[in-house]
Amino acid sequence: MPLIDNGLEILSPEQCHDLLRRNTVGRVAVTVAALPAIFPVNYAALDGQIVFRTGEGTKLQAALDKAVVAFQIDHFDGSVASGWSVMAVGMAEEITDADEVVVAEALGLLPFAAGDRSHYVPIRPPFISGRRIV
Amino acid sequence: MPLIDNGLEILSPEQCHDLLRRNTVGRVAVTVAALPAIFPVNYAALDGQIVFRTGEGTKLQAALDKAVVAFQIDHFDGSVASGWSVMAVGMAEEITDADEVVVAEALGLLPFAAGDRSHYVPIRPPFISGRRIV
Repeated sequence: MPLIDNGLEILSPEQCHDLLRRNTVGRVAVTVAALPAIFPVNYAALDGQIVFRTGEGTKLQAALDKAVVAFQIDHFDGSVASGWSVMAVGMAEEITDADEVVVAEALGLLPFAAGDRSHYVPIRPPFISGRRIV
Repeated sequence: MPLIDNGLEILSPEQCHDLLRRNTVGRVAVTVAALPAIFPVNYAALDGQIVFRTGEGTKLQAALDKAVVAFQIDHFDGSVASGWSVMAVGMAEEITDADEVVVAEALGLLPFAAGDRSHYVPIRPPFISGRRIV
């Protein structure tokens, strides 16, 4: 029987990881100059980690030097008041080890847009939670 | 001619406000116990402000006592690599003035799920920016 929190079903870690594997666009929240910011990213799930691509020289990249970040995916259908969200929190650190870069490149992560987004950033080890409207 | 930033078109404030008016679900990033967190919320645009509903006693509510928060909406279609995002950053403070509560209630903001979500929180004055994949 699922746990309910203020009208929301609490998803199991397995359900959260399943939703992470089945989606490709999420959002990362970071602190930039003491202000919160949210950036959309392309990502892939890899061995329980979340790996996303980002560019060089952006505020996002600057904020990601071993910073703790929040990553989130969701899907809501306003017309029927249904939906879910999954959040992962953990340390973000760019992949620099050559072997790990090869693994990351094999994920087939598409760049988010034109422009340089050749850096891979995993969130590890993530703490994951999720909710679904019941 | 639109401005381009690393493959993304920079949206004008008017375009951002228009997207805010035409959507109803967004996300708020806050800091809880020194860790970033992202929560989905129902919202409405009101006179250039963003007003969202939230419950009592949640981490979100606790974090919103005149905290600076980031609010974000986006829409992406992975199959055609198109999409946009709008972010607003500003101080969040619960509406307590009776007249303002009446105005907020008239927005017709649906509760996000069952459970108590009877508090209205505007982000004011928001700094708004947006990007679109070109």
